Amino acid sequence: MRVRVTVMPKAGVLDPQGKAIQQALGSLGFDAVHDVRAGKVILLDIAETDATAARAAAEEMARKLLANTVIESFTVDIP
Amino acid sequence: MRVRVTVMPKAGVLDPQGKAIQQALGSLGFDAVHDVRAGKVILLDIAETDATAARAAAEEMARKLLANTVIESFTVDIP
Repeated sequence: MRVRVTVMPKAGVLDPQGKAIQQALGSLGFDAVHDVRAGKVILLDIAETDATAARAAAEEMARKLLANTVIESFTVDIP
Repeated sequence: MRVRVTVMPKAGVLDPQGKAIQQALGSLGFDAVHDVRAGKVILLDIAETDATAARAAAEEMARKLLANTVIESFTVDIP
């Protein structure tokens, strides 16, 4: 079963990658972009047929490895 | 309006970040993970109230800057 983990910097945490993207977009003429936040998306193919169990496993993986929960928040969904 | 751009390595393109995550998960005991693909997610706050125009702008940004369309594919959605 495919599970998607999305990891984003928490609100209030400085996001230098997002700021760099915003500046680059501005220099390309995209002036209407007020804010950019950059995160990661990780698609996991888990040997699990039960959606609830697959989500629980992905959440444990996110807490233990995929996200730094001090500065990042994560969401888990079945795409 | 908030628009989400998701950028993933195309199928068949080597994904070293995904492979590294898979190995790290395996060493933590998560053996049921068959495959991992790692990509980027970019949340854009665009000064545009029309959803169609906002999506079109985000698609242009993705083609011009956010994605390398030779090796990456992207999707645009309103979260």
